[in-house]
Amino acid sequence: MTRAYNFSAGPAVLPESVLRQAADEMLDWHGSGMSVMEMSHRGKEFMSILAQAKADLAELLNLPSNYKILFLQGGGVGMNGIIPMNLLGNKKSIDVVNTGSWASKSLKEAKKYAKANEVATSEPQHYTCIPPRDTWKLDPDAAYVHICSNETIGGVQYHWVPDTGSVPLVADMSSDILSRPIDVSRYGLIFAGAQKNMGPSGMTLVLVRDDLLGRALPITPNAFDFKQQADNDSMLNTPPTYAIYIAGLVYQWLKKQGGLAAMEAHNRKKAALLYDLLDATPFYTSPVARSDRSLMNVPFTLPTEELTTAFLQGAKERGMVQLKGHSSVGGIRASIYNAMPIEGVQALADYMKEFAAHHG
Amino acid sequence: MTRAYNFSAGPAVLPESVLRQAADEMLDWHGSGMSVMEMSHRGKEFMSILAQAKADLAELLNLPSNYKILFLQGGGVGMNGIIPMNLLGNKKSIDVVNTGSWASKSLKEAKKYAKANEVATSEPQHYTCIPPRDTWKLDPDAAYVHICSNETIGGVQYHWVPDTGSVPLVADMSSDILSRPIDVSRYGLIFAGAQKNMGPSGMTLVLVRDDLLGRALPITPNAFDFKQQADNDSMLNTPPTYAIYIAGLVYQWLKKQGGLAAMEAHNRKKAALLYDLLDATPFYTSPVARSDRSLMNVPFTLPTEELTTAFLQGAKERGMVQLKGHSSVGGIRASIYNAMPIEGVQALADYMKEFAAHHG
Repeated sequence: MTRAYNFSAGPAVLPESVLRQAADEMLDWHGSGMSVMEMSHRGKEFMSILAQAKADLAELLNLPSNYKILFLQGGGVGMNGIIPMNLLGNKKSIDVVNTGSWASKSLKEAKKYAKANEVATSEPQHYTCIPPRDTWKLDPDAAYVHICSNETIGGVQYHWVPDTGSVPLVADMSSDILSRPIDVSRYGLIFAGAQKNMGPSGMTLVLVRDDLLGRALPITPNAFDFKQQADNDSMLNTPPTYAIYIAGLVYQWLKKQGGLAAMEAHNRKKAALLYDLLDATPFYTSPVARSDRSLMNVPFTLPTEELTTAFLQGAKERGMVQLKGHSSVGGIRASIYNAMPIEGVQALADYMKEFAAHHG
Repeated sequence: MTRAYNFSAGPAVLPESVLRQAADEMLDWHGSGMSVMEMSHRGKEFMSILAQAKADLAELLNLPSNYKILFLQGGGVGMNGIIPMNLLGNKKSIDVVNTGSWASKSLKEAKKYAKANEVATSEPQHYTCIPPRDTWKLDPDAAYVHICSNETIGGVQYHWVPDTGSVPLVADMSSDILSRPIDVSRYGLIFAGAQKNMGPSGMTLVLVRDDLLGRALPITPNAFDFKQQADNDSMLNTPPTYAIYIAGLVYQWLKKQGGLAAMEAHNRKKAALLYDLLDATPFYTSPVARSDRSLMNVPFTLPTEELTTAFLQGAKERGMVQLKGHSSVGGIRASIYNAMPIEGVQALADYMKEFAAHHG
């Protein structure tokens, strides 16, 4: 068995120790005689897994007591519809800051349920930066302000938390959740698909301030009604049990790594290996504004398509996979989530140097 | 490692060979250097897994070419809202046949989107039977007729397919999908959570006749719009990739068992072991009408609560777990899905005989 260095944007690399434990426990979890996949979600075995996952996550996030942890289904795209349904209440409008592909989708979907205002956009800059806060035209009567904290495709990330006054801030953190400490109290709601920094796709984490519960539109399906799910500890319906179990193992791994501050330091070190090289090597172009560069997704381009193809081929031969940029952007994208070891990033940086020297 | 005989109603027992393969492939799927959990859903590795799962499922079901296979999220409870959103179109009403806990939930949820008519109910019989077809008061102008083919809690199952004329028949097959051959062409839409007969919770199978696509209400989230998902091969958003992989392994296992006709024969044999014993032993009571007994979930009661507790305790000591009946029904429930080996059912029958002889 050889493990590749897997730079996929998501579903993405997981800690090897987590996968080993999952493999070891596949047929018999802790002497129960069952795989976690086979357990009733209401049995004491799975209930203990769920409780542990919640406790570890709350500890990692230093979660204030007035926030609920929900493990739901539907992914980020599903949440684009589910969140307006849950948070609109008797308000008429939603504010969205458009920073790229993901925020654009959220904006479009919100329009099904409300007047959705694009209060700022970096589209004129081809989504290579975050619009400064003082350019946002916020509506003080909006139900909430939606941001995407890290644009997976564009490689643009907020390195500051916007002040939205008394209007709740909602953040799609699908691709940078748990990659750095966050002050949850600055947000009304945080959501994230699991498949970048937490576990398998099919689980969606929602952290919601409890005063925002109970505003769901009558058309909200029960399974996606945050209050109902909060009242039932995410068990109004069968939750994605195996994905929660894997996420729980990842939370334990994160604690062993030293928590989110340690992860951020580690992630900064990894990202610097690539950005320093990009800045020092004219052969490569990094399209993103320096202040807004993502620590998770590092897109860059080569001078020609032929060179890009050759780069990808050579990377694969060296055991580095899933480096192709998103079709809407092209070039290369190195996703270097929590579970990407620094050795993988170093291997990529070494190869980039070598490739530029040879072809530059 | 000792594997229990796991009678959970869901999430439920999976074939041991499937779990072994999943464990073996956990760190490196087919030399890719990645776990299936870590693969981009748009990469060639996962695309091949998805294509194989669909092909095997279509073969197992003998699926007509005008039906689409969708692998979505949300579970059966989620579908109770999502299906009305997708199928109501310009109709005003939905017909629901109420046969127990699950059909009742579907009925209640449908009322959020339409006039939902309870066209027949077995509530007066405490949900121990299926109301005969000639008692159903169908509306010829309803968007569809909803049935639950197997009530997991009550242990009641349709052993016939209702004729609903030109009104599409929608069936919740969460707990009996793939347990017997079905004539898909008799249904407009079939849906099923994965966690009984297919794989881990968090994946929901939808089989939909293509003329029913394109009717979604404007409030339908993109991620749950059947037409959009059909047009994108269930990849409009990141699908629950690992759950699809496990389901694919289960489909291959089913083919090796001889397909659905062989599974039905096997399941009938297993169920007969229990029902014959229940009928022959006055100590136990089987509440369900003989003609409507489920081959998947076998509920029964003992004379007293003390005996029920003692029975469960003794079962556990013999390696038979998750036999407690649903809280709304009480007693015992033996769920004997596809992956429950006949040895497990025989062990339960032997224990039931022994227990009745000792306590009867």
